[in-house]
Amino acid sequence: MTDTLIDRRDLTFQLYEVLDTEALVQRDRFQEHSKDTFDAVIETADKMARETFANHNSAADKDEPRFVDGKVEMLPEVKQAFDAYAQAGFIASRHDYELGGMQLPESVMAACNGFFTAANPSTAGYPFLTTAAANLIRVFGDASQRSRYLPHMLSGRFSGTMALTEPHAGSSLADIRTSATPTEQGHYLIKGAKIFISGGDQSITENIVHMVLAKIKGAPAGVKGISLFVVPKFRVDANGNSGDHNGVSLAGLIHKLGYRGTTSTALSFGDDAPCHGYLVGEPHQGLKYMFQMMNEARIGVGLGAAVIGYRGYMHSLDYARDRLQGRKPSEKNPESAQVPIIEHADVRRMLLAQKAYSEGGLALCLYGARLMDDLHTHPDAAKRQEAGKLLDLLTPVIKAWPSEYGPKANDLAIQVYGGAGYTREYPVEQCWRDNRLNPIHEGTNGIQALDLLGRKLWQDQSHGLQILLQEMQVDLKAATGERGQNWALSLSETLQQAVKVTQTLGKSLMSGDPDPVLANASCYLHLFGNIIVAWMWLRQANAASLGLVSASNDEERNFYNGKLQAAQYFFHWELPTVAQDLVLLRNQDDTCLNMKKEWF
Amino acid sequence: MTDTLIDRRDLTFQLYEVLDTEALVQRDRFQEHSKDTFDAVIETADKMARETFANHNSAADKDEPRFVDGKVEMLPEVKQAFDAYAQAGFIASRHDYELGGMQLPESVMAACNGFFTAANPSTAGYPFLTTAAANLIRVFGDASQRSRYLPHMLSGRFSGTMALTEPHAGSSLADIRTSATPTEQGHYLIKGAKIFISGGDQSITENIVHMVLAKIKGAPAGVKGISLFVVPKFRVDANGNSGDHNGVSLAGLIHKLGYRGTTSTALSFGDDAPCHGYLVGEPHQGLKYMFQMMNEARIGVGLGAAVIGYRGYMHSLDYARDRLQGRKPSEKNPESAQVPIIEHADVRRMLLAQKAYSEGGLALCLYGARLMDDLHTHPDAAKRQEAGKLLDLLTPVIKAWPSEYGPKANDLAIQVYGGAGYTREYPVEQCWRDNRLNPIHEGTNGIQALDLLGRKLWQDQSHGLQILLQEMQVDLKAATGERGQNWALSLSETLQQAVKVTQTLGKSLMSGDPDPVLANASCYLHLFGNIIVAWMWLRQANAASLGLVSASNDEERNFYNGKLQAAQYFFHWELPTVAQDLVLLRNQDDTCLNMKKEWF
Repeated sequence: MTDTLIDRRDLTFQLYEVLDTEALVQRDRFQEHSKDTFDAVIETADKMARETFANHNSAADKDEPRFVDGKVEMLPEVKQAFDAYAQAGFIASRHDYELGGMQLPESVMAACNGFFTAANPSTAGYPFLTTAAANLIRVFGDASQRSRYLPHMLSGRFSGTMALTEPHAGSSLADIRTSATPTEQGHYLIKGAKIFISGGDQSITENIVHMVLAKIKGAPAGVKGISLFVVPKFRVDANGNSGDHNGVSLAGLIHKLGYRGTTSTALSFGDDAPCHGYLVGEPHQGLKYMFQMMNEARIGVGLGAAVIGYRGYMHSLDYARDRLQGRKPSEKNPESAQVPIIEHADVRRMLLAQKAYSEGGLALCLYGARLMDDLHTHPDAAKRQEAGKLLDLLTPVIKAWPSEYGPKANDLAIQVYGGAGYTREYPVEQCWRDNRLNPIHEGTNGIQALDLLGRKLWQDQSHGLQILLQEMQVDLKAATGERGQNWALSLSETLQQAVKVTQTLGKSLMSGDPDPVLANASCYLHLFGNIIVAWMWLRQANAASLGLVSASNDEERNFYNGKLQAAQYFFHWELPTVAQDLVLLRNQDDTCLNMKKEWF
Repeated sequence: MTDTLIDRRDLTFQLYEVLDTEALVQRDRFQEHSKDTFDAVIETADKMARETFANHNSAADKDEPRFVDGKVEMLPEVKQAFDAYAQAGFIASRHDYELGGMQLPESVMAACNGFFTAANPSTAGYPFLTTAAANLIRVFGDASQRSRYLPHMLSGRFSGTMALTEPHAGSSLADIRTSATPTEQGHYLIKGAKIFISGGDQSITENIVHMVLAKIKGAPAGVKGISLFVVPKFRVDANGNSGDHNGVSLAGLIHKLGYRGTTSTALSFGDDAPCHGYLVGEPHQGLKYMFQMMNEARIGVGLGAAVIGYRGYMHSLDYARDRLQGRKPSEKNPESAQVPIIEHADVRRMLLAQKAYSEGGLALCLYGARLMDDLHTHPDAAKRQEAGKLLDLLTPVIKAWPSEYGPKANDLAIQVYGGAGYTREYPVEQCWRDNRLNPIHEGTNGIQALDLLGRKLWQDQSHGLQILLQEMQVDLKAATGERGQNWALSLSETLQQAVKVTQTLGKSLMSGDPDPVLANASCYLHLFGNIIVAWMWLRQANAASLGLVSASNDEERNFYNGKLQAAQYFFHWELPTVAQDLVLLRNQDDTCLNMKKEWF
């Protein structure tokens, strides 16, 4: 069984040959970095992921956290991994040096976190949520909140969670009922129930800092009445000491299909004791704050889905090289030796598809991370703004595409293993189960589709879309060789048709009832997503063609040829699937819209 | 939570309005039957499946069989269900009255077994395997074997298994190594190891009759040297009494991702005691015998996949009607009530797709079962032969299409449930896990694709294909109304293109190297399978149009309109996906063939 999580040669290619990550060291924020420091931190992540995270990935799946006497019991290896991650400085890695951070670029941290998720998505969930919660406090919290919580979260003494969902309000956050009542002491009293809160309780950290959405009494209805609160499990004094129980209690653990090592909790607030919450920022702005962090969270989900797909690919590739079974159709001698299954064209199809999905998904997420870097650190203010707009537009795709295709990759990994893949004795079935969460959380893919077609495309007079088209033109023009130019041509033609249909849909959307247009939003997301990933494959093909010219040995040539063949696979086998989307969207197909519920 | 397994109205429609199952009672073999007896046995199956099988479906998944001191410990409910099934006469149901059977048609038994698999695929596995093993003995065994085993298998005292796979020989049965050494007493000594043997041991029946593939010493290499043996767990005397241990020992249980209630075993033969095997039929004809039963087994897998998909659809439909969440895009008032999620067009899309996959898959399997009835009981000898040829051709599709699309339906069922679907507190995740086996066993879908494109299409000068085209013409001509005629037109056009590409592929295959053509066999199977299922939807649409004319109340009209809308979904959203297959096949795309293993 291979212990490769993400192929390092591929990662180097994506970071340096496709994205020119090294250029970031020219920027003020990263001036103390170099390719060497980036590589060193990636090396550390890869090693730690293999040694401290992958080691208990299967064990934590089999022996999931238990709810005993109101507390969570879990494997000690989870805490060891969390602590190792924190002590290596990864929670604080993106932050300023003065906060104990390393001022690392998002693109480098995305690469690092790719290893941890590939190794053990469940354990990685705890530090990742802590990072996200800390980020919310850093950006929107007041000075007292920052000093009280931030250092302890970044050091790994406290963990963090995102407490949004309620039993009757998941996709529709407008309907949350958790209430916040102001007190004369300045804090609020929080009362309500949350569900599906990942890491909502655990036996890892001294304290847990919940970022809770609630409504202040008298707030406007809907999303405009949601506020954000810091709610620690134990109250924290000004010196960061954890004290009294703060009325957050664990009502139960939810038993999931995968991601079993991450506790999914039902929490009640203010049930057995007063629960103090501290307002973050302004009242009624909670959802806006959350959404400003959403790009990051959604890239995280997309990345997770891509790298879990990637890990399954690595396993099934390894298995396909070793496992002997059958002969080619042209071999008629039954006494000839059986061949490794990688010799069978249909197995190669399944491996190529996995390669296309996982490397394509990774490319997309690293591109998204780079846009975050540009948004925050590009020296040119106009470029910063453009990066932000493009990222906003692409976020639904970055979340949804890998979370559709990563699980498809895992499904194919099982199929490559055959009967063995269906057993828990081999690792790919867990990848498949773990990855099934990704199309659901952080906004289901149906919600992402509505976000894209209902909102993101039209923001700022579609400026994001215009930037996208300009960026794509650069790579379309750069395509070389007969194959590359053919791919560019087919992408360009598909793109033109997509733009046309987008304009038509936009007109319908602005002029009348949104329901018929948005009824086919998922279809649009499939179209748009595959065009974007085809672009990612064109970018990789362009870089590979360049690399091939100067490749000095067979290993390098093999690598680049593999990239080009995977690009070919994507352009021949995947991009054409959007033809049907174009027809359905052009016709504003009303099959789903007009299906009546009585007819089911 | 609904306890509906398969919608009875749909089943009635499929059996009587689409397939005219009632006409079977005109045939000699079924002359004592009537629509009433068919309905009564279906009613019994539905009720027993809900009460005696569904009751422990989840429990047997959570508390799977255990290997304790060389024996299997399992839930007592499994034996209760097996015994109930046997006592109701279901194992013997297809057999002659004189064998204690009910002489029921295959199409009626397929419907019955659909309920049992939908209710609990793991428990249903035991009697189904027993039925299949008994059938092998009935057809190919000698008089002594038939009298020694058959009555006890049909009554449920003994169970049966199929012992084909070995650790190094799964898809490639040519390479099995289990040996059979003749003795002077007439029996053979069996020696070897088998793996993934479902029901290979259990604590249900007094004895287990293994149908074992082995090679007699000195046999020809490859598949031409495989013989079939009866190998009981305990030796059986002429009166059917089980006696001494027969050297079949349980080496271990395999832990699967799903289908957990069915033991999957590693068995060793002749390791701890001499293992007596009894040759079935002629030497070296074992695989041929197995394959003559394969149509039945493969329809069983397809049916299982379709009805597990169906059950997930029933659950998610029920959930979608109840679960309140969000509002339509056009509803801007946040204080308006939340709507049941079935009101959201994207949820309807996911439900319609499930309806199209599960009802389409069921239609296909019932059609296959009807062909088996025609093969065995059609009064016209020419029609019997035609049915056999058509069934041979369609078998890879009947196995593979539902086993691709049933799991897709289950995936969508999870998505409809959202976060709840990802938990083990709701039933759809188990459906999804259970169903993942179906693309693998009884020949992976890759093997089905090779069987179709490499063999079945060309058998008997493609007579099967000609019969298929004639049968399709009948339904294409019968299409009525504007919608129906448009669907028939699009199916007819797609079919013409498929026939053309099939001819081209056939020429390439006959004239040269089979490897390039067969490299894209899976692509061909996708094309062919979706054409066949589009035909199944056209047949249903034709019957529904007819039904709608004479429908006398809203309930009936709703049912038929639902059928027509699902047909529309299939023709607008699914059939067009084959356009890309046509291109790839026409071009004899070599992407997968030419990918080198060093390039991965």
